[in-house]
Amino acid sequence: MKLPGQEEFDVSSAYENVPTGELDSGPGSGPSPSGSSDTESRELGVTKDPLLFIQLNELMGWPKAQEWRETGRWVLFEEKLEVGAGRWSAPHVPTVALPSLQKLRSLLAEGLVLLDCPARSLLELVEQVTRVESLSPELREQLQSLLLQRPQHLIQSTDTRPCWGSAHPREPSHDGEAPLKEQRQNSLRQKLPPGAEVGAVLAGELGFLAQPLGAFVRLRHPVVLGPLTEVSLPSRFFCLILGPPTLGRSYREMGRAVAILLSDPQFQWSARRASTLHDLLAALDAFLEEVTVLPPGRWDPTARISPPKCLPSQHKRLPLQMQEAKRPSAWRRAGVEHRHNHMLHAPSPELQRTGRLFGGLIQDVRRKASWYPSDFSDALHPQCLSAVLYIYLATITNAITFGGLLGEATDGAQGVLESFLGTAVAGAAFCLMAGQPLTILGSTGPVLVFERLLFSFSRDYSLDYLPFRLWVGIWVATFCLVLVATEASVLVRYFTRFTEEGFCALISLIFIYDAVSKMLSLTYAYPIQRPGSPAYGCFCQYPDPGGNESQWTRTKPKGRDDILSMDLGLVNVSLLPPPECAQRGGHPRGPGCHTVPDIAFFSLLLFLTSFLFAVALKHVKASRFFPSVVRKVLSDFSSVLAILLGCGLDAFLGLATPKLVVPKEFKPTLPGRGWLVSPFGANPWWLSVAAALPALLLSILIFMDQQITAVILNRAEYRLRKGTGFHLDLFCVSVLMLLTSALGLPWYVSATVISLAHMDSLRRESRACSLGEPPSFLGIREQRLTGLMVFLLTGISIFLAPVLKFIPMPVLYGIFLYMGVAAISSIQFMKRVQLLLMPPKYQPDLLLLRHVPLSRVHLFTAIQLACLGLLWIVKSTPAAIIFPIMLLGLVGVRKALEWVFSPQELLWLDELMPEKERSIPEKGLAPEYSFSANDSEDSDLMYQPKAPEINISVN
Amino acid sequence: MKLPGQEEFDVSSAYENVPTGELDSGPGSGPSPSGSSDTESRELGVTKDPLLFIQLNELMGWPKAQEWRETGRWVLFEEKLEVGAGRWSAPHVPTVALPSLQKLRSLLAEGLVLLDCPARSLLELVEQVTRVESLSPELREQLQSLLLQRPQHLIQSTDTRPCWGSAHPREPSHDGEAPLKEQRQNSLRQKLPPGAEVGAVLAGELGFLAQPLGAFVRLRHPVVLGPLTEVSLPSRFFCLILGPPTLGRSYREMGRAVAILLSDPQFQWSARRASTLHDLLAALDAFLEEVTVLPPGRWDPTARISPPKCLPSQHKRLPLQMQEAKRPSAWRRAGVEHRHNHMLHAPSPELQRTGRLFGGLIQDVRRKASWYPSDFSDALHPQCLSAVLYIYLATITNAITFGGLLGEATDGAQGVLESFLGTAVAGAAFCLMAGQPLTILGSTGPVLVFERLLFSFSRDYSLDYLPFRLWVGIWVATFCLVLVATEASVLVRYFTRFTEEGFCALISLIFIYDAVSKMLSLTYAYPIQRPGSPAYGCFCQYPDPGGNESQWTRTKPKGRDDILSMDLGLVNVSLLPPPECAQRGGHPRGPGCHTVPDIAFFSLLLFLTSFLFAVALKHVKASRFFPSVVRKVLSDFSSVLAILLGCGLDAFLGLATPKLVVPKEFKPTLPGRGWLVSPFGANPWWLSVAAALPALLLSILIFMDQQITAVILNRAEYRLRKGTGFHLDLFCVSVLMLLTSALGLPWYVSATVISLAHMDSLRRESRACSLGEPPSFLGIREQRLTGLMVFLLTGISIFLAPVLKFIPMPVLYGIFLYMGVAAISSIQFMKRVQLLLMPPKYQPDLLLLRHVPLSRVHLFTAIQLACLGLLWIVKSTPAAIIFPIMLLGLVGVRKALEWVFSPQELLWLDELMPEKERSIPEKGLAPEYSFSANDSEDSDLMYQPKAPEINISVN
Repeated sequence: MKLPGQEEFDVSSAYENVPTGELDSGPGSGPSPSGSSDTESRELGVTKDPLLFIQLNELMGWPKAQEWRETGRWVLFEEKLEVGAGRWSAPHVPTVALPSLQKLRSLLAEGLVLLDCPARSLLELVEQVTRVESLSPELREQLQSLLLQRPQHLIQSTDTRPCWGSAHPREPSHDGEAPLKEQRQNSLRQKLPPGAEVGAVLAGELGFLAQPLGAFVRLRHPVVLGPLTEVSLPSRFFCLILGPPTLGRSYREMGRAVAILLSDPQFQWSARRASTLHDLLAALDAFLEEVTVLPPGRWDPTARISPPKCLPSQHKRLPLQMQEAKRPSAWRRAGVEHRHNHMLHAPSPELQRTGRLFGGLIQDVRRKASWYPSDFSDALHPQCLSAVLYIYLATITNAITFGGLLGEATDGAQGVLESFLGTAVAGAAFCLMAGQPLTILGSTGPVLVFERLLFSFSRDYSLDYLPFRLWVGIWVATFCLVLVATEASVLVRYFTRFTEEGFCALISLIFIYDAVSKMLSLTYAYPIQRPGSPAYGCFCQYPDPGGNESQWTRTKPKGRDDILSMDLGLVNVSLLPPPECAQRGGHPRGPGCHTVPDIAFFSLLLFLTSFLFAVALKHVKASRFFPSVVRKVLSDFSSVLAILLGCGLDAFLGLATPKLVVPKEFKPTLPGRGWLVSPFGANPWWLSVAAALPALLLSILIFMDQQITAVILNRAEYRLRKGTGFHLDLFCVSVLMLLTSALGLPWYVSATVISLAHMDSLRRESRACSLGEPPSFLGIREQRLTGLMVFLLTGISIFLAPVLKFIPMPVLYGIFLYMGVAAISSIQFMKRVQLLLMPPKYQPDLLLLRHVPLSRVHLFTAIQLACLGLLWIVKSTPAAIIFPIMLLGLVGVRKALEWVFSPQELLWLDELMPEKERSIPEKGLAPEYSFSANDSEDSDLMYQPKAPEINISVN
Repeated sequence: MKLPGQEEFDVSSAYENVPTGELDSGPGSGPSPSGSSDTESRELGVTKDPLLFIQLNELMGWPKAQEWRETGRWVLFEEKLEVGAGRWSAPHVPTVALPSLQKLRSLLAEGLVLLDCPARSLLELVEQVTRVESLSPELREQLQSLLLQRPQHLIQSTDTRPCWGSAHPREPSHDGEAPLKEQRQNSLRQKLPPGAEVGAVLAGELGFLAQPLGAFVRLRHPVVLGPLTEVSLPSRFFCLILGPPTLGRSYREMGRAVAILLSDPQFQWSARRASTLHDLLAALDAFLEEVTVLPPGRWDPTARISPPKCLPSQHKRLPLQMQEAKRPSAWRRAGVEHRHNHMLHAPSPELQRTGRLFGGLIQDVRRKASWYPSDFSDALHPQCLSAVLYIYLATITNAITFGGLLGEATDGAQGVLESFLGTAVAGAAFCLMAGQPLTILGSTGPVLVFERLLFSFSRDYSLDYLPFRLWVGIWVATFCLVLVATEASVLVRYFTRFTEEGFCALISLIFIYDAVSKMLSLTYAYPIQRPGSPAYGCFCQYPDPGGNESQWTRTKPKGRDDILSMDLGLVNVSLLPPPECAQRGGHPRGPGCHTVPDIAFFSLLLFLTSFLFAVALKHVKASRFFPSVVRKVLSDFSSVLAILLGCGLDAFLGLATPKLVVPKEFKPTLPGRGWLVSPFGANPWWLSVAAALPALLLSILIFMDQQITAVILNRAEYRLRKGTGFHLDLFCVSVLMLLTSALGLPWYVSATVISLAHMDSLRRESRACSLGEPPSFLGIREQRLTGLMVFLLTGISIFLAPVLKFIPMPVLYGIFLYMGVAAISSIQFMKRVQLLLMPPKYQPDLLLLRHVPLSRVHLFTAIQLACLGLLWIVKSTPAAIIFPIMLLGLVGVRKALEWVFSPQELLWLDELMPEKERSIPEKGLAPEYSFSANDSEDSDLMYQPKAPEINISVN
């Protein structure tokens, strides 16, 4: 399931100008592709430059009253003033006509270029700039007064909170000009990071000028140029482009060209360091060398291009020195190697086998122990409070949903109360001990499916379920301990996308199938009244005082026709409803007495409503309506809100829909048992040994479920600093397995979706949220306290249980369906299945499809579908219980696929298995492979940080 | 409602290379914006050039086996070979790095340029091209054999039908090389128009070359160059770019640059006419003058840009001669004036008042008479057959839906049978006589609303409805005749978007409200059984043989409690269902006998299902799944399919849902009346005079409903050649009014949506459907035959009526809701209402918002909302019947808005009223207005042909 906010991972990459003050990526972060931009830019020396805000003031109103007006601004992208509407346009990719750049070049070459100008105020600057030979003294004066004129800014003083923390900007103390009121109220000011500088560009047509006037100034010490710029930040660059009004709007376009140049990181880097005009022009030429050109006949130059999802990597753009050194081949080779490192996830040192018993576990414990104090101190941030609230609600929704389903699946051997208690106990314990404390433990789909199979097996053989289950738990704990001892967790490297997707798809399908079939089974429990069905007949019969025994009691009626055709003779009757009838000593008679009408369809309505409402709310996030905070709340709490809506609807109509069964007191759901499960019960003693067989299967399942989640949580793009803990986590799970089995509580492993949501709510981000720049991702607040708080609250919520009896079961089924659908639609496999239905012409431009022939893609999808079909068949036969082995078989199938597909194809369709790591790079470098043949075309796209696409599994 | 395929109107604009062979825009087509590109291009002399298909063959595999492979192709946009996947990419805007263009320029300047080369085969051509001094003889031979080598093409031989009609290409007879098999099988070949030419570009690195080799050849007589190109079309241009392998892939990029240049219409025009190398280089420089530049830091050069919705206008791009003449100011002025003509729809001559009685009508009849024969001969095209089928289904859906609602609204005074009969008779008559025979007559929302008001009025005063209605009809016909006589139809010029949207919004809201309220009223008719409600009690009581009268008949029970508490004593009972009970001589007793359970919720389910299914099917058109034919069918027949689904669901469950009431025989629905309505019935004589008052109101309504539809149908963008017939249409409507009133059939005016669908199904289009080029719109098959056939079929369908009794009413309500929702969501007003809920940051980049301050936009929306609220209040009071006058009042409100908003604002928010036409252009030209200040930025966007945005009204 794709989590809210995860799309942003895509874009949190190469913003080379973002200050890295808050960024502290530890030594263990591995070869992270998104981290690379920092190291790279640091290495190229770009990092230390402050952010540059560029503003274009245009001279308007010629030949009448002349005034300066800010008509454009740039940080990453361009915002244009919509003069008519009086608003800033949406940020877009700046484009400019080539002649403007060329004219600008010649103007700069002839004009005034002051590098390291010592001016300390606008007045001084203006004096320096106008000291040109071509100007007569009076013209100079006129120009000076014009330049000192206060420009018009469109200040949008929306009440957004500051984006860059509360740290207030350093006050510009070294110049006399205090910021204007409008400058102080400007919300943009607060969105720019501390230390940001300004580049001011002034452009326009001036009637009294005889020839163009161009000036490019770099101030030695940045200084606030009074009211010149929209924000009262010190200016570093100042550019003046004026000319006689013959060439129309070309000066304005030249001004835009300067601004676009300055907003280019490479040009800016050079301009900050240029010592002569020659350097500046060389930088401009280097820029021109790299521009992309759009043909005039196929592209309207006035069309605006939205900011791309992913900025081009600055990898391939070298600073001037580098370009002069001319080492392209070495660089290209470096790039290729880097790509390989990224594509083939190198096994992290934590997944190296130590070769000693419990070696991995000991390593994990050692590593984690050193972080333990910080796991509590790092939680002291207000963000953690909201994370606790959010995850708490998600956790109890999960506990309610799975508790309800578990109660049904096990005929009440467990229920909602066990679910709450178990979640609280196991979750809190895990948070305290685990290797990855960001993990939220919860009931998961696969384990639920297995438990249902186990229960029906034990029912079929009349076993005492809970004691049998206890032995299964004991064996599972044992097996898991063996897995920990033998460091089996290093095998997670073999879980490629193929395995993850097969696992996820199967479980999602089971969810969908279960939700629908449970819903339909309600129509059997509450049959629909067709015309002519005997729903009508019902009356209240009183015992005949005269002893005239009714025909009803004399001949037991059997079928429908039997009842209908029966002439009851003379009886003493009334029309009281069944309960009141019984109260008055009568007997309700007739087939209509026991049917409850309308429930079937109303349940169906509730089911559909809660499903559709949850889906719709989830999509609110991507809509344009409401402020983003509201959208985030609506979308994050979609399940909770959908449940509430369903309950409200049900309460409003007051029908007797089937409700969640909730115990009235704090005691086990199964009547007559204490909290501790007796080890044998009514079962024979050898069952405790036989339980090892299902336990083996469950161990496989738990291992896969737990470790697939752990792999996803520990992905490089989350930039975790405190390392992984695969062995320790599995150890904790196995200990908790023992505990929950002994108490008759549900079994728990890591719940993928909630854990991802937990991490997401703890993201640390730079808050530059204006001007088209997405906030950049800095890391996760890794600590143990939020999880602990969540499970403490869950424990307290046990006393809320009586409220839960108002939740109708169809609503829970609807949420269940939603979970299944959301999970299955998030995996790449489904995208490929959709490709099967699309004519090639309409297929989206997936990278996959650029590199692998369509027939091969379809073949891969077909094989996956076949595996899925096989798994489904196994699951539906009496052999169902062995399906964990079949799941493990997916790894084998994936291995066999290497005989069918080339490594290149598998690289695009799946990840590579570890053995292949060594063999591919050489092949990939061979020139005849599409791989390097398309080098210049694809390499940037391949550099994109991989988004966590398969956030699989269903809580 | 936006029609399928109407988006394409947007793009059917400036494809200057499409042959205009099939285009025959008549003299009366008016100032059509989309027509302008042709006249323009013709005037610039571009039209006669054939289409150029450009192909890039790249030399692959160096240094080993060298082979040519086609890696790119261009017509309008670029398609790139995905080497790995072996498929063509989606068409995208071609982009190229600036250095490639510059290097190309210097290569051409030094290289071989042969203009009007007389070569007549590939061999001759290769010999000419390799006759360069720098090559030694053996190298020349080597190169020649390489060039003659057969290249690899990726031929996609999908079985698409030919896009350019069956006209087969002229066989290349003048050269000896027959087309290869793969060339003949190529489906691309069939998508190119007859007469298309090829430009072949060969590029790559060649080991044995010492220096770059460039050649640009224009053949005097285009010739098929054997297997060189993918399609066996004669080549006009041939370009060779080879060089030593030092510069990496730059030769390939230079090859792409040539191809992009050749695909540019302006460069191509110049290259076809260049007589010297200088001309060619000048054309290249002119191209460079106009290119748009994307900065390297903000745009990844490898990203692909999808083809824009609208190609840039070639208006502003002048051929070289013109540029040399340097007359920019005159051109710009011409552009501005053109825009004004477009923005302020000039009154067409047909809407000028003649000043004579019936002058407009006579003019209409004269004009139409001359086209009359062609109105039948133009229908001889297979497309008309499918149009008949499609419109027939839409018409009977309309007849069923409105017939069912009308029957309900008038307590059975009219019904489905009348609806079918009336539709057939009135529609056929209209098609034979009308001014605009593409119009499909039908029941429309406004008239239905009025009829319902009229019926409830006549019921309140115990009037005989049909005779009263007859007099209303007579008066309406009289008034309409007066309107025709006084040429009132010229007033349609005052119906601006404001009026249309107000009208549409009100009617849509009435539809939505009605559908929901009718659905909810079903829950009263079939009450939901809450727990404790007395639904249970029901038995069958037989008359007591002993004469012991039952308590039931003795004391009439009243309330619920009365019944329940009643002790019936000894009675003879059975449990037979009510019908069987009555059959056996018993009496069903008890409150439960008459309730039908489950119907309410099932109806709600049917209602929601048909609504959601119709919405979903409508959206299938925009999805990527299935071939476009399937999508079109699913989306076009969404209502029919949704009705069928609803009926199927209902039949499957077999519940007693309320069904459409259908007469068993061919006679009026109201029992006891003949087909002719008696003129007085039970009404007093003076009522025939009093009927004039409601008739006045209905006349206003019919005038507005009919004329708003007519305005939409006659919009310039549909390029109708046979002219409008506003007066004649209104005349026909008034005559039919008389007829239908006398027969007691529903009243009919033009149904907007079906009429638009009719026109859409008769579109004539050029079929260049490949390479990213949308088909270009050529006009509509204007004729009378399709409409006539549709209504003939509708007449025959009267005998299908018995089948219709299986349609459940909730399904029809669902379709009704869908109609209302679809209509209201298509208008710009709703887009502006949505803006109220969007934070400015997330608002879409509407042109409107670029030019009008947000607060003014909101004010305009608020005024419209207030008008709508007022109309709704009037409609809900006893004064409801005067709502047509209130609708007319919208025109007055719009007039008053001129005091609140500036003409510029109204230009963007609405259209201008006719009086303003003269005053605006002068103002608009004043330089301080945003209008011309943003000239270069917006003008192209304003040239976009206006899509028919407000396709209002609900059948």
